[in-house]
Amino acid sequence: MTAPQTAQQSEPLSKTRLRLWLKLLKASAGVEAELRRRLRTEFNSTLPRFDVMAALARAPDGLRMSEISERLRVSNGNVTGIIERLVDEGLALRLAVPGDRRATRARLTAEGQQVFKAQAAAHEIWIDELLGGISSEDLGPLSTRLDQLLSHLEQDTPDAQ
Amino acid sequence: MTAPQTAQQSEPLSKTRLRLWLKLLKASAGVEAELRRRLRTEFNSTLPRFDVMAALARAPDGLRMSEISERLRVSNGNVTGIIERLVDEGLALRLAVPGDRRATRARLTAEGQQVFKAQAAAHEIWIDELLGGISSEDLGPLSTRLDQLLSHLEQDTPDAQ
Repeated sequence: MTAPQTAQQSEPLSKTRLRLWLKLLKASAGVEAELRRRLRTEFNSTLPRFDVMAALARAPDGLRMSEISERLRVSNGNVTGIIERLVDEGLALRLAVPGDRRATRARLTAEGQQVFKAQAAAHEIWIDELLGGISSEDLGPLSTRLDQLLSHLEQDTPDAQ
Repeated sequence: MTAPQTAQQSEPLSKTRLRLWLKLLKASAGVEAELRRRLRTEFNSTLPRFDVMAALARAPDGLRMSEISERLRVSNGNVTGIIERLVDEGLALRLAVPGDRRATRARLTAEGQQVFKAQAAAHEIWIDELLGGISSEDLGPLSTRLDQLLSHLEQDTPDAQ
């Protein structure tokens, strides 16, 4: 970027971007910590477990363990442990993969779908509340800037995405 | 927030905030993953180690292990392991705490300060590059909105901050 330095009077742009990054990190870590806390106290659940259920809820035919861990950047071992507990609790089922005796898929049971629906509804309300500092008028512009950041980031780090 | 629904035509605000949150999370996770990758390949280091050195670099008299872990939300065990390696490499020193035989402080050596200075300079350049999608004109408004988000978040989650 060769844009002229206008955002701050005397500070180099790199310092302004660094401070912005620290705020971005603080905001996402703060929201995430609060989500973890509420999932634990309200649903006796965790963020990785919520994410696994969210992935399964969008896949009525189920997903392989490897597909879940790829989508969520969660290790295969963690996914396996989470699925085991969901199966024990009657919230998920394991299915054989035709033609591959060593692989299994998992999908949510009807009860699992119901449980996740309640958690997802609470999660949406929490996010609405935690991000309430962003007014309705600011949501669009902020979203546009994050899109620019993400699209630049994807160009800049093709192998990391 | 009871602001009228203007940002998106037909979508409830809570859905717009949810999508914004997913972008915010993707942006911070993406930048963080790239920082981890570069710290590893360029400096054979890690993000927790970088953060510990950053805390020590700002404390010429050194810090107790407990002070470091409080500041960084890193576990005491992790901090101890990182300090041990820094001491082994001649980058940090352990100091006794007068009046408390069981506690120790750590501080960077002159070499540790030099090494960290180089890493911090690279880190600032990386952030400038990775956040380059945000133009200089947009940095101020984005920073203001993140301040609003953070200040609302602190009100909303007093015990989590």
